[in-house]
Amino acid sequence: MGTEIERKFLVATPPAQDDLGSGVHYRQGYLAGEGDVECRVRIAPGGAWITIKAGRGLARTEVELPVPLEEAEALWPHTAGRRLEKVRHRVPVEGGVAEVDRYGGDLDGLWVVEVEFETEEDAARFVPPSWFGADVSNDPDWTNGALARRGRPDRPDT
Amino acid sequence: MGTEIERKFLVATPPAQDDLGSGVHYRQGYLAGEGDVECRVRIAPGGAWITIKAGRGLARTEVELPVPLEEAEALWPHTAGRRLEKVRHRVPVEGGVAEVDRYGGDLDGLWVVEVEFETEEDAARFVPPSWFGADVSNDPDWTNGALARRGRPDRPDT
Repeated sequence: MGTEIERKFLVATPPAQDDLGSGVHYRQGYLAGEGDVECRVRIAPGGAWITIKAGRGLARTEVELPVPLEEAEALWPHTAGRRLEKVRHRVPVEGGVAEVDRYGGDLDGLWVVEVEFETEEDAARFVPPSWFGADVSNDPDWTNGALARRGRPDRPDT
Repeated sequence: MGTEIERKFLVATPPAQDDLGSGVHYRQGYLAGEGDVECRVRIAPGGAWITIKAGRGLARTEVELPVPLEEAEALWPHTAGRRLEKVRHRVPVEGGVAEVDRYGGDLDGLWVVEVEFETEEDAARFVPPSWFGADVSNDPDWTNGALARRGRPDRPDT
């Protein structure tokens, strides 16, 4: 567990493939969202997890529990219409490690980058490198749950 | 995991205290419900669990994962307005073991009994003992999630 402090940005210029490495393919499905709580299942080559995120804004409570693959697959059909898939790359940046996600499926071509911090001060102090795009940390349309349910926001600003 | 096959009844006449034993006190809070999926946290003296139930009717997929108490308590505030507490007693009945729940808090005085089965045939064959009341297995107002959110159904039939 703990408190997850992170910022999320669009990607203005994706890093070169050499900087990205091969990445890890995830598929994740949203089991249920209500109030400020979201419960999802993530299936990756290395295993499967149930993740519960609760709270809003920069700092959220996050509980992540490993789940046997067979159980994750039994839950998967119940996430229809609330799914996404992506390849996650970990890229070092000044002030931390960026998780650069290239989405597939219905969101093919979309890139998003997240950086996790130890403290809210670190998060506030972070200066995004030039390849980062708009800061969407507090934009509810850019949560993964929203992307999985409604797709990419159709707005001129982003 | 597995598929949970159970029937739920009201209680016409609660068993005598000697037949009930001391029971186990649970509190459970509903983290999120969406579509046919429900995700809850249960905190008992012996530990805490995250449970995900998916699907409708007699047979549902159920995934139960132990969660450290500290993490369960961190999620608990996010279940406000979607909670219940009960004392659960296990009582042998012909055809299985009945889980007899006496609710507390806002639902004080309510009794419900559930019986779990190996197969749907066993469930269909089950003859409830005389102390059981109405069969509410398929009544959405009598799920624990509904009781936690909306309280006891205010209807003459039950």
